[in-house]
Amino acid sequence: MQLGLSFSDSDVSSFTPLVVLELADDTKAEAITWLLNRIRDKQQNGGAELLVDQLLFPAQDGQKSNPNVFVVGSTLQRLLNGAEDVGLFKEFQDGTMRGFTYVNRESFRDFNGDGEGFLSNAECQYIIKHELDTLRAKNEEHVPGYPKLKLYPGKSVVRRLQSKGVLVQYFPLHDKEDLKRLSFSWYKKIKLSFQPLDDIRHYFGEGLALYFGFLEYFTYALVPMALIGIPYYLFDWEDYDKYVLFAVFNLVWSTVFLEVWKRCSATLAYGWGTLSRKKAFEEPRAGFHGALGFNPVTGREEPVYPSSKRQLRIYLVSVPFVLLCLYLSFYVMMIYFDMEHWAISIYNESPNFATSILLFVPSIIYAVVIEIMNLLYRYAAEFLTDWENHRLESSFQNHLVLKVLVSLATLLITSQILNQVMEAFLPYWLQRRRNKKVHKRMRRIMGDKELPLLEQVQLETEMNTYLGTFDDYLEQFLLFGYVSLFSCVYPLAAVLVVLNNITEVYSDAFKMCHVFKRPFSEPAANIGVWQLAFETMSIIAVVTNCGLIGLSPQVKAYFPESETQLILIVVAIEHVLLAFKFILAFVIPDVPKHIQVKLAKLEFDSLEALKKRMSGHFTLYCT
Amino acid sequence: MQLGLSFSDSDVSSFTPLVVLELADDTKAEAITWLLNRIRDKQQNGGAELLVDQLLFPAQDGQKSNPNVFVVGSTLQRLLNGAEDVGLFKEFQDGTMRGFTYVNRESFRDFNGDGEGFLSNAECQYIIKHELDTLRAKNEEHVPGYPKLKLYPGKSVVRRLQSKGVLVQYFPLHDKEDLKRLSFSWYKKIKLSFQPLDDIRHYFGEGLALYFGFLEYFTYALVPMALIGIPYYLFDWEDYDKYVLFAVFNLVWSTVFLEVWKRCSATLAYGWGTLSRKKAFEEPRAGFHGALGFNPVTGREEPVYPSSKRQLRIYLVSVPFVLLCLYLSFYVMMIYFDMEHWAISIYNESPNFATSILLFVPSIIYAVVIEIMNLLYRYAAEFLTDWENHRLESSFQNHLVLKVLVSLATLLITSQILNQVMEAFLPYWLQRRRNKKVHKRMRRIMGDKELPLLEQVQLETEMNTYLGTFDDYLEQFLLFGYVSLFSCVYPLAAVLVVLNNITEVYSDAFKMCHVFKRPFSEPAANIGVWQLAFETMSIIAVVTNCGLIGLSPQVKAYFPESETQLILIVVAIEHVLLAFKFILAFVIPDVPKHIQVKLAKLEFDSLEALKKRMSGHFTLYCT
Repeated sequence: MQLGLSFSDSDVSSFTPLVVLELADDTKAEAITWLLNRIRDKQQNGGAELLVDQLLFPAQDGQKSNPNVFVVGSTLQRLLNGAEDVGLFKEFQDGTMRGFTYVNRESFRDFNGDGEGFLSNAECQYIIKHELDTLRAKNEEHVPGYPKLKLYPGKSVVRRLQSKGVLVQYFPLHDKEDLKRLSFSWYKKIKLSFQPLDDIRHYFGEGLALYFGFLEYFTYALVPMALIGIPYYLFDWEDYDKYVLFAVFNLVWSTVFLEVWKRCSATLAYGWGTLSRKKAFEEPRAGFHGALGFNPVTGREEPVYPSSKRQLRIYLVSVPFVLLCLYLSFYVMMIYFDMEHWAISIYNESPNFATSILLFVPSIIYAVVIEIMNLLYRYAAEFLTDWENHRLESSFQNHLVLKVLVSLATLLITSQILNQVMEAFLPYWLQRRRNKKVHKRMRRIMGDKELPLLEQVQLETEMNTYLGTFDDYLEQFLLFGYVSLFSCVYPLAAVLVVLNNITEVYSDAFKMCHVFKRPFSEPAANIGVWQLAFETMSIIAVVTNCGLIGLSPQVKAYFPESETQLILIVVAIEHVLLAFKFILAFVIPDVPKHIQVKLAKLEFDSLEALKKRMSGHFTLYCT
Repeated sequence: MQLGLSFSDSDVSSFTPLVVLELADDTKAEAITWLLNRIRDKQQNGGAELLVDQLLFPAQDGQKSNPNVFVVGSTLQRLLNGAEDVGLFKEFQDGTMRGFTYVNRESFRDFNGDGEGFLSNAECQYIIKHELDTLRAKNEEHVPGYPKLKLYPGKSVVRRLQSKGVLVQYFPLHDKEDLKRLSFSWYKKIKLSFQPLDDIRHYFGEGLALYFGFLEYFTYALVPMALIGIPYYLFDWEDYDKYVLFAVFNLVWSTVFLEVWKRCSATLAYGWGTLSRKKAFEEPRAGFHGALGFNPVTGREEPVYPSSKRQLRIYLVSVPFVLLCLYLSFYVMMIYFDMEHWAISIYNESPNFATSILLFVPSIIYAVVIEIMNLLYRYAAEFLTDWENHRLESSFQNHLVLKVLVSLATLLITSQILNQVMEAFLPYWLQRRRNKKVHKRMRRIMGDKELPLLEQVQLETEMNTYLGTFDDYLEQFLLFGYVSLFSCVYPLAAVLVVLNNITEVYSDAFKMCHVFKRPFSEPAANIGVWQLAFETMSIIAVVTNCGLIGLSPQVKAYFPESETQLILIVVAIEHVLLAFKFILAFVIPDVPKHIQVKLAKLEFDSLEALKKRMSGHFTLYCT
């Protein structure tokens, strides 16, 4: 069945298209037929029980378009069943968040009539993605028409097709109406206001909404730091006390900031129903492979991979590799220092224009080398993390972030020590300019006019893929580093970061709405390993700030005779500050009291229900 | 109804006596009648529905015994219902631990026939204690016969009687048969073996069993330290590397030791069914007071006290008080230093016998003053913690321990710095000798011969009350401090601690079985705030060890010119060690994998059951 379909055409498909599947244009017909059958097949036969139609593009400018583009949709009933499969939490009658079940759908607050509008567009797409990802091979030994594409029972079909390039991509479609409404409330209003986090979550999912929530929270939290930093900058300080005061304030700020964020994110995540989702209940990520077995927790059939093997891979391969890279980057840094030393000595011998240019050469070479090394390292890190075969997407992400951050620490500290702020900002600005160009092009193409489905799909197919929040968090992490690590010598950092982030919100929002393909919604209860990264940074900040204060001439002047005494005092203060920081983090509860109570209530009700259910079984046995 | 009853008499009571209640001998008859009625009354009338009988002692040696001694027991059915009330976890058919419910009692592994022997003696007593503690006033405005003993709906009757001295004490009776078996397997065997932790838990409850588990684990863990310490002591070290090596080993040891203990205790607690017990589901501790309201989690009627008020009390009163005491103790320490300085200067002027004795005077005065201050402080700490009105016994204990430890830190560090090991051990030895005397007397009285109930109750009534594991943990904590804080200068510490602990196990075991009243079993999933205390100590140990190494003449000889360089290197090493310690603690999971899976399974099943149950409700509404 081949039919062209669009909203304006007469031969409209019977369903709302939600997700686009693009297969390679030379895909063999039998493979396509097999895949479509598997997608359409009933669940009890191991199919996904989804609706799927082919899109036929007319040839444009003599270029033949890819004929193998499909749109996937679903009946409402199937989506509601899927919502139960993926474990969505929704607001119950009594105001608490409960796992959704189809049978008692009527007891959920926003469920009206047949459930139209109960699931957001993003949730529907997430459910379809989940169903496609968990479409597993049965008894097929290989993909029909491709004897080399081996399959075994339990292997994710979509992942296998993807890994061999047969499935080029699959992504969720934008919803023009929702998008227009979202972008209006998000960044088209002139007046200063909070971001519509609930709407963002509704359209893009929890992971992205949490990123924007964090971005906003971070920016607001920086305002006091910025306000204090300005007078420090304007009136040159010569005063020892103020130095220490600013550093202590900075320390307390960064601790409280991160602790309060945990509470905020817990509150957000509870309202979004992701706080109670348990990792062990999640389906394994598509890339996870292993022999088919039974999940010891849920009892479901799925690939199983011994965690001891994963541990071995992590500790025997990944950790040594990361340490080796770390050593290498330090080694390169040492070479750089030597080079710079040599350049300075030449300049000192004969200071002229040529030699003054020579002064910049080591830095430029170093920056280029580091950039290349970083690129290679990131590929390696991604490969290694994939090879470690993590069961959950979140755990995959965490291990990846940890690997990248370890190498980044060197870069960050080096670049700061060398006062290379500009060098770090330069590539960033270049990139932003490039992005702006893309913006303009997209704006011209997309405009606000209504597009027929065919054109919309064609357009979105060509858009860049958003690769997740990794780089966005990384940028905020670096900014946080500039603010906290060297705050006492550069108090204006907070001001610059606030200014940067205000534009950041708008450009990120625009980017999400109009530059990239719509990403699949990613349920998230917190910002994951980034929390740990920020906390670690704030601990390192205590050390660097104490060190910088100890090094400053003003402070040294207080102890003209005894350097030892100065160092001991600085070290003592540092220890007290660190202890204070840990106590503070310990004393502030991570989850607000009222959320704790609601979570405990859910758990209590669940255990009570389990007791009752067991007793039900018992009565059954007896009667 | 007054009846004398004992096992050997003919008028045996119809029930097994489990708990002894002793009222003041001048208690008014109407109060007694009222209390007994409330204890015997049916649960739907707000009673405890327990069995209770009076014991009448014959006058001995012309002294009239207290006539108001009662024994409490219960029917098996009532105990099983009570087990459900207190939320006991028992092993289910499928080998997992599940909350016990009466209705499906047959599905639990060890339930045979009518359930005789399903609950251990200690569990029965714990259930009775719980039922007595939660026996709450209904509409009585005061205790009958005592217009001043005001009651209000929801006030715990037993606690009110206890606070005014009407209820002198209540405690569980020993079970001679079980005790004989336990003490044989515990400390009467000569051969070296592990302690029978399951039996201890069976007889004394989880809290005490965990203490003995920890004691044993700690002692075994110290053996490698001791083995390494001996050669260090025997062959005088002059070697810088060995110094550092020992300190690093000590650091890694103390971290791994504490992390692995968490795993051990989780495993023990899971098998004992206390790991899944949730704090919010626990009944409030007897001393907790507040207006009657509804628990937001369980929906049960119970006293409610706003946690904001408690926070205010903690932060505005308790914390400043503790800090003040800390300041005071430092101040006293300074005075002590001055005194010692003065004594030494006198001795140096004219060294003779009288002045050499004078040298000891400051230390003795200081030790006495500190001892008195500590005593006063502990009373104050207990009063304050009680006043903070914690809902849970565990949270009460945690706050008490934290308060006491903060003050103790001064004592510990002072006494060590001053090399007063002997002074610290002296009172301990004295106390032990006193204990031994008590042992002998008790052994004479109790022997092994069968005692009639009357005599047994009379004897146990007079025994000392065991005040909980606080002092036992405190001793281990101090020993841990000696081992870890100054290990690199006194490598023999571990050997002494091992020797001490071997005798400790036996004396503690004997003390529990024959010296003290049997304590009520206390469910515990871990060693609570002591874990935190030990971990904090091991962090401080890194600092002290690095400092000691830096101070040692051998190390100083390596940096004859630059003291600054030495300090910087020591500080750098210290930071690396601390970072390593945190990474190690982060990497080792607190709960073993297989326990994690079982816990997740319970949670998953519970949530599934809740879904099913909600759908049950729904069907009910529909039909």
